[in-house]
Amino acid sequence: MEQAGLRAESVDAMALPEQLVRCRQATLDLVEGLTEADATVQSMDDASPAKWHLAHTTWFFEEFVLGAYLPTHQPVDPRYRFLFNSYYEAVGPRQPRPLRGMLTRPSLAEIVDYRCRVDDGLERLLCGGALPEAALALIELGIQHEQQHQELILTDLLHLFSMNPLRPAYRVAATAAADGGTVAVAASHAAWIGFDGGCFRVGHTGSGFSFDCERPAHQVMLVPYALASRPVTNREWLDFIADGGYRTPSLWLSDGWARVRAEDWQAPLYWEQRDRHWLQMTLAGERPLDLDAPVAHLSYFEADAYARWAGARLPTEFEWEAAARAQPVAGNFASSGLFRTRPASRDGQAPLRQLYGDVWEWTSSAYAAYPGFRTAAGAVGEYNGKFMCGQYVLRGGSCATPDGHLRATYRNFFYPHQRWQFSGLRLARDRG
Amino acid sequence: MEQAGLRAESVDAMALPEQLVRCRQATLDLVEGLTEADATVQSMDDASPAKWHLAHTTWFFEEFVLGAYLPTHQPVDPRYRFLFNSYYEAVGPRQPRPLRGMLTRPSLAEIVDYRCRVDDGLERLLCGGALPEAALALIELGIQHEQQHQELILTDLLHLFSMNPLRPAYRVAATAAADGGTVAVAASHAAWIGFDGGCFRVGHTGSGFSFDCERPAHQVMLVPYALASRPVTNREWLDFIADGGYRTPSLWLSDGWARVRAEDWQAPLYWEQRDRHWLQMTLAGERPLDLDAPVAHLSYFEADAYARWAGARLPTEFEWEAAARAQPVAGNFASSGLFRTRPASRDGQAPLRQLYGDVWEWTSSAYAAYPGFRTAAGAVGEYNGKFMCGQYVLRGGSCATPDGHLRATYRNFFYPHQRWQFSGLRLARDRG
Amino acid sequence: MEQAGLRAESVDAMALPEQLVRCRQATLDLVEGLTEADATVQSMDDASPAKWHLAHTTWFFEEFVLGAYLPTHQPVDPRYRFLFNSYYEAVGPRQPRPLRGMLTRPSLAEIVDYRCRVDDGLERLLCGGALPEAALALIELGIQHEQQHQELILTDLLHLFSMNPLRPAYRVAATAAADGGTVAVAASHAAWIGFDGGCFRVGHTGSGFSFDCERPAHQVMLVPYALASRPVTNREWLDFIADGGYRTPSLWLSDGWARVRAEDWQAPLYWEQRDRHWLQMTLAGERPLDLDAPVAHLSYFEADAYARWAGARLPTEFEWEAAARAQPVAGNFASSGLFRTRPASRDGQAPLRQLYGDVWEWTSSAYAAYPGFRTAAGAVGEYNGKFMCGQYVLRGGSCATPDGHLRATYRNFFYPHQRWQFSGLRLARDRG
Amino acid sequence: MEQAGLRAESVDAMALPEQLVRCRQATLDLVEGLTEADATVQSMDDASPAKWHLAHTTWFFEEFVLGAYLPTHQPVDPRYRFLFNSYYEAVGPRQPRPLRGMLTRPSLAEIVDYRCRVDDGLERLLCGGALPEAALALIELGIQHEQQHQELILTDLLHLFSMNPLRPAYRVAATAAADGGTVAVAASHAAWIGFDGGCFRVGHTGSGFSFDCERPAHQVMLVPYALASRPVTNREWLDFIADGGYRTPSLWLSDGWARVRAEDWQAPLYWEQRDRHWLQMTLAGERPLDLDAPVAHLSYFEADAYARWAGARLPTEFEWEAAARAQPVAGNFASSGLFRTRPASRDGQAPLRQLYGDVWEWTSSAYAAYPGFRTAAGAVGEYNGKFMCGQYVLRGGSCATPDGHLRATYRNFFYPHQRWQFSGLRLARDRG
Repeated sequence: MEQAGLRAESVDAMALPEQLVRCRQATLDLVEGLTEADATVQSMDDASPAKWHLAHTTWFFEEFVLGAYLPTHQPVDPRYRFLFNSYYEAVGPRQPRPLRGMLTRPSLAEIVDYRCRVDDGLERLLCGGALPEAALALIELGIQHEQQHQELILTDLLHLFSMNPLRPAYRVAATAAADGGTVAVAASHAAWIGFDGGCFRVGHTGSGFSFDCERPAHQVMLVPYALASRPVTNREWLDFIADGGYRTPSLWLSDGWARVRAEDWQAPLYWEQRDRHWLQMTLAGERPLDLDAPVAHLSYFEADAYARWAGARLPTEFEWEAAARAQPVAGNFASSGLFRTRPASRDGQAPLRQLYGDVWEWTSSAYAAYPGFRTAAGAVGEYNGKFMCGQYVLRGGSCATPDGHLRATYRNFFYPHQRWQFSGLRLARDRG
Repeated sequence: MEQAGLRAESVDAMALPEQLVRCRQATLDLVEGLTEADATVQSMDDASPAKWHLAHTTWFFEEFVLGAYLPTHQPVDPRYRFLFNSYYEAVGPRQPRPLRGMLTRPSLAEIVDYRCRVDDGLERLLCGGALPEAALALIELGIQHEQQHQELILTDLLHLFSMNPLRPAYRVAATAAADGGTVAVAASHAAWIGFDGGCFRVGHTGSGFSFDCERPAHQVMLVPYALASRPVTNREWLDFIADGGYRTPSLWLSDGWARVRAEDWQAPLYWEQRDRHWLQMTLAGERPLDLDAPVAHLSYFEADAYARWAGARLPTEFEWEAAARAQPVAGNFASSGLFRTRPASRDGQAPLRQLYGDVWEWTSSAYAAYPGFRTAAGAVGEYNGKFMCGQYVLRGGSCATPDGHLRATYRNFFYPHQRWQFSGLRLARDRG
Repeated sequence: MEQAGLRAESVDAMALPEQLVRCRQATLDLVEGLTEADATVQSMDDASPAKWHLAHTTWFFEEFVLGAYLPTHQPVDPRYRFLFNSYYEAVGPRQPRPLRGMLTRPSLAEIVDYRCRVDDGLERLLCGGALPEAALALIELGIQHEQQHQELILTDLLHLFSMNPLRPAYRVAATAAADGGTVAVAASHAAWIGFDGGCFRVGHTGSGFSFDCERPAHQVMLVPYALASRPVTNREWLDFIADGGYRTPSLWLSDGWARVRAEDWQAPLYWEQRDRHWLQMTLAGERPLDLDAPVAHLSYFEADAYARWAGARLPTEFEWEAAARAQPVAGNFASSGLFRTRPASRDGQAPLRQLYGDVWEWTSSAYAAYPGFRTAAGAVGEYNGKFMCGQYVLRGGSCATPDGHLRATYRNFFYPHQRWQFSGLRLARDRG
Repeated sequence: MEQAGLRAESVDAMALPEQLVRCRQATLDLVEGLTEADATVQSMDDASPAKWHLAHTTWFFEEFVLGAYLPTHQPVDPRYRFLFNSYYEAVGPRQPRPLRGMLTRPSLAEIVDYRCRVDDGLERLLCGGALPEAALALIELGIQHEQQHQELILTDLLHLFSMNPLRPAYRVAATAAADGGTVAVAASHAAWIGFDGGCFRVGHTGSGFSFDCERPAHQVMLVPYALASRPVTNREWLDFIADGGYRTPSLWLSDGWARVRAEDWQAPLYWEQRDRHWLQMTLAGERPLDLDAPVAHLSYFEADAYARWAGARLPTEFEWEAAARAQPVAGNFASSGLFRTRPASRDGQAPLRQLYGDVWEWTSSAYAAYPGFRTAAGAVGEYNGKFMCGQYVLRGGSCATPDGHLRATYRNFFYPHQRWQFSGLRLARDRG
């Protein structure tokens, strides 16, 4: 029987084992080359150590899949339930979030071993005959969950390395190769692409995977609107700075202006001006700012202030979704190995460029339940619902998002002050 | 010419002078009987001293009306621009909000004198011939603004007196009289009142006053829903407490549960248990809890947790508005002099009882701009727009709201952790 | 029998009633002219409202004297035990210190009435026949305690008024008169006055009153030293500022430098530069800085940094005491009505000028128990002993200290970051 | 020429090279077996990563010795001056202390290489002919400095491992061996050992090394006193707990009681009660409490409260020094490899047992300058002097102190709330 929030009927049971193996391997690939220390340190409360991500995604499978469906499974280490539970109150107490970086033990090797042993259990489970739909649904959820953490491994490492005055690079070689593949061109002036108003169906309806927060599909009314043909670029952001954007209270939300002053914001996160040149900390180390690439590492407050400065506004999440639905899900995702934004390519034919990948685009929509939203039963029901307060929806994925993870109905969400994700903006405005 | 956000054409220029005089007097009436100290102390950052409210509402007229339309007006005291500006960045720097309680001078008498002198200016202005529509619109805005502060005077005094172990009463006599008029009856079981789904027009359209955030009117899609026939009562809240509501994390939003633990919430604000009886601090001093009256002084977090516990949910602001539009705006407002919630009267015929007055009802809607929202030009444009982040909409007014101030489209808003207003909830649910 | 810490044998029982009456009246005189609001607001955690001082000093007599020695005494209001207990854990719970300013009730008039009723009780007690020595000792302690709070009333009001952009004056008239009596002269260069080393007896031995922390007298070894003939002046402090004193980390204690940066100290508390002139907030309102008057409102950190800058050091409390013992206790105390520092007069003959009065002089001595120190039995034993940690001793009294309160062995103490007292410094150095 | 604060004439130039090599190797030995992560994570602001200690002690030699006396020396990495400067303002800006744990790079291997290269420089310098006395003095200071950090490596690792629910052990094997060597015996009742009063010379006078804060020697007056024959034991501390020591405000300094309540102290740091048994986190992992061993990991506040509870007091640092001077410097130091306190051995003949080693003994003396104290010229003058505020002196060394580092005049110092050192207490009382 279906659990509310998990839609088991849609799982392709044939493809699942291979997807699982690929996903699990992809996570390991991300930590290749990290030192034990790189994988252990927590650079702020919002971020988690790479090692913790490795273990937590594994615990997720152990707790929700093996624990429920593989009766012969013995916990690899009963203490891991405490160490690697993220926020599931129904599972029990856990290592306090700000102290995830205290876990110098278990070692990275021990965590990799933990992964192997849980993978073994999953393999046994998948080979052991037809699984209930609910079990398949949980495995699929575990894969999607792990993909989310793959992105977080990258953004959290970037934050960690940014705190180090040596500005270490995570992946230089891969980046260089990827760089070569891009012919950097000056971003052309963004155009306004118009869309009709009316009644639109939003939310997930297809047969593929979706998170509970993307459902149920429902109708919304839109008034005619326009979206910019591409995200705001670093070059445009420099204009905002030069025009006193960070010093003009009338451009800002009240809470945003308070934040600007309290933390002395003068540019996006990871920007640094040296000898009158702007540098940006990236996963390839500190680099000159790529002027034609989409601006990233913005808070909602900054995105909103820029839009006001530009005489425009942020789109709602439904304006974004209605416009995106017709476009193929393709763009500068993590598979490029670049791990930073890049200028729009010349040859794209879609009117809306860089809609997927590059940067998560802040929308003006508060993260909230869709009409008729139901959480899943049990601890896994805490996955999304309990965070529907105080956060804003971002759409479209980023250069750190795993390929294949995105879709038009996908809803990411962060607090309006948070900046360490690859978060940018695309302008919107009313029409007519 | 009309300023965006101010709709001058609708002002009834004939009635305005009298409305103004009545409103200004009503504010003074509220501080009758307060000591100089009562009127000066600030009990928390969110609250302001009564004296400051008296002065700020006056400054609002002086700054935005006299300053712009009465050329002969000399500032009563140029330093008041600093002291009594609330948050208008465009006007200039101001006394920091947490330090409003430092202003033991000017005295209450000096502030009353300030009020008189600005009132004189307004009278001169209104008698001096036909005023531009924009001026009339600003005067009307000033009246509505002052009414909002009338409510805050009451809620801020309640908070102040609650910090005093002597539990002083603000108005005992008036309350007693009002009490006499109420035949307390046990609240009957709440019924579910059903409403159809479909496309509804929300937002303000009529000719009367509305704030910018209530406009423009626009269409929204609603799915069929039901609202409880009355707000949740204190008696029902006791059931929630007895059932471990404040100790059950699965009932709470993540941020809400963090707040519960950090501040050790065990009951609504102002409740105190003594010798196994529950008392409630009110503007008439500490009183036994009235079990059949609507529960007040809830945070959004508590309202949301209760709804989940009850197997229901909070209404959206548009569900509330669609249901309320048909009902007369009547209820337990401030004119009763009771200043606390009271049980639903027996003789009401409306299916939705206590929709207006008694308690502001938390909705699940984040406070956001309506499609096509425009702020007014100039400093007055900071009135509402810059607060559209992180707050939730409440509807319906309370026992501290001035009569005549409310309407079906009225949007109040507070942060989800705030509890010092008369804030309660009405349950909603989907209709299958 | 003597209580440890209270030396009853020394009380002059004849003089006590008159001293008591004079002291009690002097406190009331200090609040003459304050508004109810002035007397109620608390401007920071370290300060208390004047009304609270009035009540607390009264509670001290009620709790420790009437409660113990006047069996017929009924508490004036049993709730005052909670409201006006400062820090006596043995007496019981109390209004949290940061919330003393919430007490808009009882009113000032009610507190004055409370004072009268306790005074009546004390009069009855004193007229009722020979009192035990311990009772007399507690009354004397109550008088000395109240004198300490008289000084705090002044310093706390100064802080309150300094938070008000209107910069209200506490007592202009009295000040003007006092001003007239002073012929302002340029302070001459400070001279070094040398003192021999050797073994000295310090601490209180005479028959008059002393606090427990001044006892027992004991011997200390001093090496030859010199003291400056007068305290550092405002003019000299300007040199320190001009020389980058507040920007030079090598001058500062580590904790001091952290404070300088965290709070952006650039001058003593209450100094403000406007149009290139320095003003100082005083109890007579904002005034031009008196260049030849001793600098006041310094933290220990500032005093210590200045001394290092000047190639000198702070004296120990025993160096100060050994030098002061020979001098009459006379100076610019509160009776002058000036309530601020004034230049050394020309006609003084003592080699050490302004040793008493004007400013409390920071010493390098941590506030600690003398060898053999005993606290009094009971709650009153909490008077001094429990504060012997983290604070530094100041000597000599200030322009806000009541006349007759000081003596050579008197030890005042504050935390090294505190600045709202009239605290200054006198330089010392080694000799030979 | 002698720098104030550095006494070069006393350095034994012959022995220095060997001492240096031994000291440098001892530090490396301490990190043997640590993972890269163990050596990198910072568990609190007060603690530093082991890797940082390794680098900082090396930087100390590079900055102050090679930089000044080896002209051919090129900085190993110029960025290390920023990364590994601890608090020397005169050297320049530095990695903020709370962010020392962000340095996942340079790696442990790179730091070890840094050490080798600086060691090479030092060797070249020492072989290059007669060095100025000042250079020798700085090398000796560097050795002593590194020994201090050897102790901190141990205490900081203990804190780090205590934050890990797995309770990892730092050195089990070594500990077991050491354990075997101790015949645990029930601690006998502590005796009081009396000492005469009078004038005593304290501070360092001999020819060996001493820190600037131990000088100049000077005379102090002591009144007759007694010291307990051994430190307070864990067993005795259990009596304090059982008697409500942590719940009785009258036992505590005011600041101490505030800390007890704010941090909910119920036992010394690292104690944990499980199933009615007390365990203690040690460098050998979690262990049953050794009842007869000296209690460790106390704040000054706890030590002071215990002494009051026991009807005694803490000794002054000079009482301790006068008593200790006659005793050989021997005890349970780090060379035992035990790294925790152990019961007094039966066969000791000294009247004062465990005076050296086991636990640093809190004294009632605020850390302050001795009369005539001078800091060294230059950045190295910041070594001790700028910390002489708000801290208390501890004497005698601990089970984590390197052998040979201690002497009777040695002054350690910490803030009164700090508990992560091996800090305990020995009772004192007045005599006669």
